[in-house]
This record gives sequence, structure tokens and C-alpha cells, in this order.
Amino acid sequence: MSRVLVVGSVAFDSVETPFGQVEEALGGSALYFSNSASHFAGVDLVAVVGEDFPEEPIEKLKAKGVDTSGLYRAEGETFRWKGKYGYDLDDPDTLDTQLNVFGDFSPDLPDDYRDSEFVFLANIAPELQMEVLDQVDDPKFVALDTMNFWIDSKRDELVEALERVDMLVINESEARQLADDANIVQAADTIREMGPQMLAIKRGEYGALVFTPEGKFFAPAYPLEEVYDPTGAGDTFAGGLIGYLAGRGEVSETRIRQASVIGGVMASFCVEEFSLGGLDGLTDEMIARRFEKFERLVDFKTIDTLEE
Amino acid sequence: MSRVLVVGSVAFDSVETPFGQVEEALGGSALYFSNSASHFAGVDLVAVVGEDFPEEPIEKLKAKGVDTSGLYRAEGETFRWKGKYGYDLDDPDTLDTQLNVFGDFSPDLPDDYRDSEFVFLANIAPELQMEVLDQVDDPKFVALDTMNFWIDSKRDELVEALERVDMLVINESEARQLADDANIVQAADTIREMGPQMLAIKRGEYGALVFTPEGKFFAPAYPLEEVYDPTGAGDTFAGGLIGYLAGRGEVSETRIRQASVIGGVMASFCVEEFSLGGLDGLTDEMIARRFEKFERLVDFKTIDTLEE
Repeated sequence: MSRVLVVGSVAFDSVETPFGQVEEALGGSALYFSNSASHFAGVDLVAVVGEDFPEEPIEKLKAKGVDTSGLYRAEGETFRWKGKYGYDLDDPDTLDTQLNVFGDFSPDLPDDYRDSEFVFLANIAPELQMEVLDQVDDPKFVALDTMNFWIDSKRDELVEALERVDMLVINESEARQLADDANIVQAADTIREMGPQMLAIKRGEYGALVFTPEGKFFAPAYPLEEVYDPTGAGDTFAGGLIGYLAGRGEVSETRIRQASVIGGVMASFCVEEFSLGGLDGLTDEMIARRFEKFERLVDFKTIDTLEE
Repeated sequence: MSRVLVVGSVAFDSVETPFGQVEEALGGSALYFSNSASHFAGVDLVAVVGEDFPEEPIEKLKAKGVDTSGLYRAEGETFRWKGKYGYDLDDPDTLDTQLNVFGDFSPDLPDDYRDSEFVFLANIAPELQMEVLDQVDDPKFVALDTMNFWIDSKRDELVEALERVDMLVINESEARQLADDANIVQAADTIREMGPQMLAIKRGEYGALVFTPEGKFFAPAYPLEEVYDPTGAGDTFAGGLIGYLAGRGEVSETRIRQASVIGGVMASFCVEEFSLGGLDGLTDEMIARRFEKFERLVDFKTIDTLEE
């Protein structure tokens, strides 16, 4: 079993959806990812918080097998994000972003992070993603997430980073934007020519379309009766996917497919509550039961075959 | 093996997409449905055309096992629709609709249609859907499609019709509109209280979400490199789904799931060309090969299991 290294944000999120709201709740890509991945592998966290960040959530991470020696505390305030979702719970409006201590974060990785085999570069500036990757000796599997902001403002740096990764994890609309192609299969072809041989294209409540070395996989999302807050669902998906791969220590065709389903399983818990509430107190048994529901959701072979 | 009765439109469609256009090409819900369903069951067609409709397509239908004794020819012109799609190939703008002979169509079903076991009431006025259903003695399985226009303008009639059907086939946005609920699972619950115990919610390139008597099924769509014209994809999906059920003569949980995949298979051919081009010349072997691609698309169990 390998560990997985993640660099990304730890944040205070203020989120409003038609179903409720939270103020300054725990959030950030690295925090969602770590909570999710920790069910399948050890996690080495690289991020920065300000003086205002409490100790308790850090202690909770440690208890889940997350190494926080790469979680730096800097002078100033923690990163903050404020957003609002409409009834479709699709792309939120960003009302406020305060980078704070994240503004000039330049991490020096702990020595024992350097032999990481599985790496997730969450959605941060591409230069920072590369800076972290430079400090990892010989990774086996590197995945990267990004967003429209970096595609617009740091395209060259992003393309440079993409040359060095195995998998791009990205929203569908952003994949289309990156490739400048409305057809998602053609967009995937274009992006693969940039570097990453695998793509996990996130489609919200429609699941994910995963381009594997050998083909395409249509990963389901679970149709849920109650969805309160989609914040962090993408990072939680990535945490399940990459955490599962790291836990198994291999990146085979079947493992990638299973890992994508696991990603969907974890994301389905995430959206059922605000902030990290849906991931708190999650047991292996709850995950296994939800996985069985996913199996049933896409099963069309139980009784008989098409040919009979 | 049962036959399937369909009532719907036979039309001339003028369609423009970013990838090309056709003028007065063959179209209409009943024509797409019949072409698709005829691969799996005999089809009894109920529709009306004008004096301007050629004989050749009718002969082609007959050659495919479609009974056209319920395809009436009336004085006047055939139904015409004109629409334009954007790059997302999502909801088209309707530029023109001419009901023509469809305006006062009131079919008197051929006697040997009356013992139909499988019935598809394609997207037409709910009163007309009921008028046809009144003439079927004791159907085993009735499915109905509708659209925002009828939800807005004939809601009471539609709700009355829904009480009499087993399955509603409907676009996702229209399911939300009908139930007045943004959450699709809750919307499905609301609609099931109106009558239909099964729902096939069409999600375009994201496949379909099918509510079966025993649960939920996430039916995939195939990610295609080239999509030229989505017109008729929904009716082609319904034709595969209901044609397959009629061909098997049974409506079990597994059959509904398989039938939904078959629906997706047929729709995937439909969108690859304009008008009925994608369904022309389709062989059983081509359908079986595409079905295998769908199986592979959602398979995450080939090599090993989660537990090992």
C-alpha cells in the first residue's frame, strides 16, 4: 500500500444553497481530498493555514492517518471562499475569495514526502503545482485538477504542468474550454496530446466520464433524494479515486474503473451535508454499502443475457 | 413476441446544427420510433401524412415489418418542423411548426391493432393519446412521452392520461417542470404518484435515469466522437426500449434495464447522422456490436473485485 501526497487549499468556506447555509465552515480542496482518500490510503498533506486556524481539525486529520507535517502555519489569515448556488446546484457564483496566507505559499516539502508514489495536485496555481512536483523524486502516478481561472490566466504554465501528469481531473465545461472543442470525446483527445494519458471528466450529478489507457468508462453518480451542498464534491471524488489507487498500489484498467466508482461513492456522501459533515463519521461499512448501491444502479445483467 | 403500437407524428423536418443542415427531411416521433423498434418487434403505426408525402418511405417501413394500415393519408400537407441547434446540441430553437394534417387528426384504429399489448403514445396532444388508448382493449404495457408545451397548455389532460400509463418517457428538464421539483429523485416520486410506476428520464448525452418497479437504473449514453443531429434521439431511445420489451414479451426488472441500454444503443446511431440516416441500413450485427461497447463502457468488474 502506497501513500498519497496532496497539495491544495485548506480554507474557511461560506456557502449558501437553496437548502441552507454555513459561515466560515471547514473547506478547501486538500481538506476534502484528505478526508476522502484517508479511507483507502495514508495521506501526506501539503497546504498552508493562517494563525486563525484551530488545532482540532488538524488533530482529527492525524487520527485519520493524515500526515500533517507538510501543513504549514503562516502569519496572517486562512484562505477564505464565499459562494452561492442556485436550485440546479450547478456552478456557484463566487461572491468573495481571500487568498490570505495562500497568496505567497511556497512549500518546502518534508523529506519523507519526497518518495511519494501517488500525487494529487489539487486546483491551485500551476506554478505551485509544479513546484511541489519538482520536490517528488519519482512518482508513479500524478493527477492534477484545475479550473477556468487558470485556463484563462495561466494557460502556458498549465500546459507545461500537464506535460508532467498522468491524469487530469477536470469539470466537463472546463475540459471543453481547455481543448476549445464542444465535443467531449474530441476534447479528451486534444487534452491527451498535451500530456495526461488519463482523464476524469467530472459531470456533477451525471457522474464522470473517465478516459483510461484502454478506453472509456462511464462512472455513475448516485441519484440522491437530498443534496444540500455540492462544494468539495469534485475533490472528494478525486480523493476516493486516487486514494483507492494508492491503497491498492497499482494503476490497472480495472483498478481505475473501480477507483472512479469509489470516487463517486465518496462524492455522494459529501453532497448530502454542508462542509465536511457528510464525510465525518463515515465508516468502511457505510462506504461498502453505498458501493453496493452503485453496483446495483448500473447492473443490467443480473438475471439473464441479451442473447438468450 | 408481441407487437408494439405507436401513435405519433410523421413529419418533414428542417434542421440546422453547427455541423450541417437538412431541408424537409423525413422525421417525426412515430417514424423514429418505428425505425428503431422494428429491429426488435413488429410495429403497428398510427399517424397521418398529407398528400405531399411520398410512397417510398412507407414501402421501406413495410419492408421493416411495420404495419402501416394505421398510417392515414389526409387532404392537405404533412406536418412540418423547423429547428436549429447550438454547439451544445441541447434544446433546439423551434423556428417553425406547421401542424397541417395533424391539426384535426382523429384516428380510427384498424381492428387488428385493438389487441395490442405494448403501446407507445409519442409526444402529441394528451387528448389524442387518450383517444388512441381508448381503442386498445387490454394493453399490458403503455408508455407515454410528452413535452413542455403540453405540460404548460394541457396539464389537466396530461395528468388524466398519466393515470393510465405504466411508463413516462420524458426529458429531464420536463420531468422537473411537471413535478415542480429541481431534485430529480423527488420529482420522480411526485410523478409516480400521478400514475406511471416507471419513468425513463432522458438526459441527452448523459444517458437516461430509469425508475423501475424495484429501484433506479443509470442507463449510459455512448460518448461519441461525431454527433451531427440529436433530432429524434429520444424517440429512437423509446423505440429501442419499448421495442425490445415487446420483442421479449415481458416487463421484468432485468428486461427494463436491458431495454434501456438498447434504447441508448439505438439513440447512439440516430445522432451520428441527420434525419433517419443513422438508422438506415442498420443491421442486427451492428446493434449487437454497439451493445458490447456499452457493456464495456460501464464495466468495472472484469478482472477482480473490490473486496480482494
